[in-house]
Amino acid sequence: MNRLLAAWILVFVAANAHADEGMWTFNAFPSQDVQRKYGFAPSQEWLDHLRLSSVRLAGGCSGSVVSPSGLVMTNHHCVHACIEQVSTAARDYVANGFVAGSEADEIRCPKIELNQLRSITDVTARVTKATAGLSGGDFVTAQRGVISQIEKECAQSALQRCDVISLYNGGRYDLYQYRRYQDVRLVFAPEHKSASFGGDPDNFNFPRFSFDVAFLRIWEGGKPEKTEHHLRWSEAGAKEGELTFISGHPGGTNRLMTVAELQYMRDVLVPAKLLRLAELRGMLMEFQRRGPEQHRIATSKLAGVANSLKGMKGRHRALLDPDFMASKVKAERALLETYRKDTPEHRQLEQAYREADAAIAELRRLHRPLVFLEMDVRKPRRPTLQEEGVGGFDSELFKIARHLVRAADELPRPDGERLREYGDGYLPFLKQQLFSAAPIHPELEIALLTFSLTKLREELGTDHPVVKRVLGKLSPRDLATQAVKGTKLGNVARRHELFEGGKAALEKAAKDPMIAMALAVDAEGRSLRQEYETKVESVLSRAGEQLARARFAGAGASAAPDATFSLRLTYGQVKGFQEGSTQVPPFTTFSGLFERHTGSFPYALTPGWLSARTKLRQDTPMNFATSNDIIGGNSGSPTLNQRGEVVGIVFDGNIHSLGGDYWFDETRNRAISVHSEAILEGLGKVYRARRLVQELRPVPGSGGG
Amino acid sequence: MNRLLAAWILVFVAANAHADEGMWTFNAFPSQDVQRKYGFAPSQEWLDHLRLSSVRLAGGCSGSVVSPSGLVMTNHHCVHACIEQVSTAARDYVANGFVAGSEADEIRCPKIELNQLRSITDVTARVTKATAGLSGGDFVTAQRGVISQIEKECAQSALQRCDVISLYNGGRYDLYQYRRYQDVRLVFAPEHKSASFGGDPDNFNFPRFSFDVAFLRIWEGGKPEKTEHHLRWSEAGAKEGELTFISGHPGGTNRLMTVAELQYMRDVLVPAKLLRLAELRGMLMEFQRRGPEQHRIATSKLAGVANSLKGMKGRHRALLDPDFMASKVKAERALLETYRKDTPEHRQLEQAYREADAAIAELRRLHRPLVFLEMDVRKPRRPTLQEEGVGGFDSELFKIARHLVRAADELPRPDGERLREYGDGYLPFLKQQLFSAAPIHPELEIALLTFSLTKLREELGTDHPVVKRVLGKLSPRDLATQAVKGTKLGNVARRHELFEGGKAALEKAAKDPMIAMALAVDAEGRSLRQEYETKVESVLSRAGEQLARARFAGAGASAAPDATFSLRLTYGQVKGFQEGSTQVPPFTTFSGLFERHTGSFPYALTPGWLSARTKLRQDTPMNFATSNDIIGGNSGSPTLNQRGEVVGIVFDGNIHSLGGDYWFDETRNRAISVHSEAILEGLGKVYRARRLVQELRPVPGSGGG
Repeated sequence: MNRLLAAWILVFVAANAHADEGMWTFNAFPSQDVQRKYGFAPSQEWLDHLRLSSVRLAGGCSGSVVSPSGLVMTNHHCVHACIEQVSTAARDYVANGFVAGSEADEIRCPKIELNQLRSITDVTARVTKATAGLSGGDFVTAQRGVISQIEKECAQSALQRCDVISLYNGGRYDLYQYRRYQDVRLVFAPEHKSASFGGDPDNFNFPRFSFDVAFLRIWEGGKPEKTEHHLRWSEAGAKEGELTFISGHPGGTNRLMTVAELQYMRDVLVPAKLLRLAELRGMLMEFQRRGPEQHRIATSKLAGVANSLKGMKGRHRALLDPDFMASKVKAERALLETYRKDTPEHRQLEQAYREADAAIAELRRLHRPLVFLEMDVRKPRRPTLQEEGVGGFDSELFKIARHLVRAADELPRPDGERLREYGDGYLPFLKQQLFSAAPIHPELEIALLTFSLTKLREELGTDHPVVKRVLGKLSPRDLATQAVKGTKLGNVARRHELFEGGKAALEKAAKDPMIAMALAVDAEGRSLRQEYETKVESVLSRAGEQLARARFAGAGASAAPDATFSLRLTYGQVKGFQEGSTQVPPFTTFSGLFERHTGSFPYALTPGWLSARTKLRQDTPMNFATSNDIIGGNSGSPTLNQRGEVVGIVFDGNIHSLGGDYWFDETRNRAISVHSEAILEGLGKVYRARRLVQELRPVPGSGGG
Repeated sequence: MNRLLAAWILVFVAANAHADEGMWTFNAFPSQDVQRKYGFAPSQEWLDHLRLSSVRLAGGCSGSVVSPSGLVMTNHHCVHACIEQVSTAARDYVANGFVAGSEADEIRCPKIELNQLRSITDVTARVTKATAGLSGGDFVTAQRGVISQIEKECAQSALQRCDVISLYNGGRYDLYQYRRYQDVRLVFAPEHKSASFGGDPDNFNFPRFSFDVAFLRIWEGGKPEKTEHHLRWSEAGAKEGELTFISGHPGGTNRLMTVAELQYMRDVLVPAKLLRLAELRGMLMEFQRRGPEQHRIATSKLAGVANSLKGMKGRHRALLDPDFMASKVKAERALLETYRKDTPEHRQLEQAYREADAAIAELRRLHRPLVFLEMDVRKPRRPTLQEEGVGGFDSELFKIARHLVRAADELPRPDGERLREYGDGYLPFLKQQLFSAAPIHPELEIALLTFSLTKLREELGTDHPVVKRVLGKLSPRDLATQAVKGTKLGNVARRHELFEGGKAALEKAAKDPMIAMALAVDAEGRSLRQEYETKVESVLSRAGEQLARARFAGAGASAAPDATFSLRLTYGQVKGFQEGSTQVPPFTTFSGLFERHTGSFPYALTPGWLSARTKLRQDTPMNFATSNDIIGGNSGSPTLNQRGEVVGIVFDGNIHSLGGDYWFDETRNRAISVHSEAILEGLGKVYRARRLVQELRPVPGSGGG
């Protein structure tokens, strides 16, 4: 094993020996490495407090508790959908922002769920024992069974959410027990224009000038939740070179992908996604031109699409870098060469690569129908559960129909035999999605479903049996229009009836055009899902376990596992970077913001900011860059100093951070935060949110750099 | 040289020894190869007659003369823009089709120019002598000078158009002298729905059911031109297995590209183009939803975008095929290995590859600003002249402004020192574009220019000096709106004034917002153009000559040169192909058309077709596949039997034909034609175009299979 260890250090670790790389779990944080590099070692108490002050937005963001009364800080862009949902044409909080003057004014966000990580338990032995010696469908069933059993035993009530997390591609399994909060209310949001100043052109760029922050509050039993664990505000903020921590929920990285997986990403998955997103962006931007109401209802969707598109472009660029791919090929060879050719270890490793390659070949074949008829594939291994069963149908009503159709079949089955997203542990989240009072906009639904059906026909072909069954004699637009106008699923009570009425109710509703559409793709979707699970996911999972074991046999947990939308902690420092021939400094200021204002979207300041201009300290740091290793999902994470005090909130990374999906380039990869001083200054002087400032303001003398 | 020859045969020729590969020039057609494979050798007379019966649509299509009175057959999609231009909201020939009842009813197409190839002269010696020993800017200037001089000497009047064509990447230069026709009138067009039945989903697919044919007439001096050379109609059409010829103007292939060039295409050019086209398609489809008039004015643009997008997707797929790229790498190595390592030939060849690689590295660096600020790059070597100076600005008015700005600077210079597209030889085409009476639709212009300016800022960045200069304080939409509404360039008389008034008139008009925009990007565009020409084009051209010489030192012209939008002849046979597990037969019929009709766009037959159904012979062959080697630009080419009679008209290739840009796969690559019988049957029974049928109908007994 010594030779393996040597190779590992040579290939993977050496270059990054002193790098800030790693999205670390809270139960394996390398405090001693931080001590060596920065002279500070977080204690267990420090880590526990931070963990319990961190929250996950189940829809895909991070946040932190910042007062003893359940106040939660996150990004505006993480709660944009809620702001849109609680707005109306008359009270447009997207355009005008929202400040709750009192607790009674706080508005419930219909779809937001917060999770607080209460405990982590290693369940590796139990999971691997259950799947030992199995493969294909048996492996999937056994693994699903044991994971579902563990999660069920853990989640004693709807207040608890339990996820078994696969780390190191199946090298380790941990059980994460969360406290679940579903009554979450909006306390403060700036105008969309201020939160996303610079818009799409400045997104993933730095210098940057965004006020991308919002506040929520956890309510429980009709009153604000008392939160013992919460973060304090730093009085002074962070200075250049200062050590920073970021605690949050990075959605996913792929740093242990095999070359075949990376090539699949580069040649199949990423280009397909890019094309879809680009066309959808073109459609949505033009859709907004129909009028102000259409502009409003599509803003959040468009922002999401544009953001995904840019993120995907960054990944594409990284994957196309020939040096990067060559280094991955080299690393793969080096790992193999740590064993002599005729040893069982060498043969086993070769076998694992062969199996993984074959699984990827299957995935290339399955990709198109799988993505259109069953689920969004974000990476070759297990996708997030929210994407399953939706396929290429970009429509809220279709999603509801599909869930109702599937729930009627799945729920009567024993928990362990269901499709994972219908497991008992996921039901509260599913129900929240199904029964949400969030408005659904028929005009946007028609446009999106038309788009989806057009792509379905284009990509699978006019003569594909499912395409024929779905479209019949109708054009995509006619079908979308009939389905959106004809369905009763816009009515939440009707959804309850169908969900609670089970199979019998559903069969009676089979003529509802949206239910009919969901039924028309259901069988093919299930069959593709099964092929994916047995021929791709389970094979990659088994092979991944073996590769992970070989890679880490010597190195142990000296490298961090890939991100999996579970709570992680990273360290780094306030630091600029080199862009071409320019040295970009780490801070921007309010004065830069006012200079960038042209008056035209997306560089238009609101009247509130313009009239507060003279009152604002112009040298207040606004946004800043740190070398922390983050990725999408970290949005809303608190940026902390070594006292554990809030010095900012992460809302983005620079363009080089996008390659962070595949590797960490410390010279250029930067996390971007809104500065703590800018937040207080803006809240007080622009938004006059006195109640909030009072709740946040640091006790003088309690902190400081 | 024998070893080189051997390697060449091994690598390039052997696999295709009996293939129908090759877009052959009319002065080097391999009649003996056709004789060996199909038992028929075209004579010189046969070739000359076909050459003089073939025409090029200068905008990018092919056609053929099919009567003694100047009647020209081409595709509907080649003249769609004209049909749109001569339509109005009241007389919508796009929707309803057009049949000229008499000569007087024929309508002039404002932008169509036809070229008939009168002669081909080898000018290689003169061109290479002028550039001998030169490199960089000197090479470009000398080459441009001598080519311009040759073209000028050749084009004695505006009736002549002379192009020096580079063949085998500069291995040979031929002077093509064309007769130019600019009074071209519309005689017949079916409804757009019939021409493009199956629309975007069926595009590049087969089986196919399109009536994609249109007729024009050449006029000269106020009456139809007498055309001695014209093609006769076949009485029987072509049968399965029958030898077919296709004469036309394939726009460009890249079969001699180096690996570095192909990788640039795969990783940079094609993905960038795909993303732009996808987003533009999304925008245009939604734009059409604004109303029926917007639907009409954007139809042609959208069709072009969707077609380019699908074509680019096919190329992308081909480039991503790992076997293909591996074979190109192998071929490159094999060519090098034909020489011993220490020979001057080996060193020279290595040097040529090194130089070409360095040029591609420059192009990767230049790509983005070059494409946005100066010209569309379609392949690393010389682009078509129509793309230069337009850059990423998708607007007719901007294009006019840019040409006026540049013409004022360029025209006072001696011919040989101008940017090529302002050379004397190109002036008639330029003037036709500038002074065309074709309507420009402000609403579509605003949408397209908004899109272009948004992409410009997105791709070059908000802080790019040209972006700042162009946008100032305005948003892309506001600037586009002001520029389109504020410019006087919609008025043709104003364009004349500025063109004829030269620099002085232009300086006075510098405040016209479209002129101002053109001026704002001019200097940077010129500088990028110069970098491109000196660091990329000239280097690739020189290196290409050397590589071409090495490749063909032994094989000579036994392989065809890459397509260059010059007249070519291909041979093949009526033949189906294998698609997955299905054998696709070569013919479709009218009965299949009626079966595919759903009533919903794009599968909706027009009332004319539906009411003629019972009169039409249902087994009439409608579309058919042949193994001829064609590519974009061949649209509208006549498909001929060995008697030189029309058996169809090419309008597309199958999906596998798109890889034809890089290689020819005879097992699957197919050209798709409308069958000659379907054309006569449709013209007579659906469109009652009796005058036209009479003009076309074969003299009984004169032909037949």
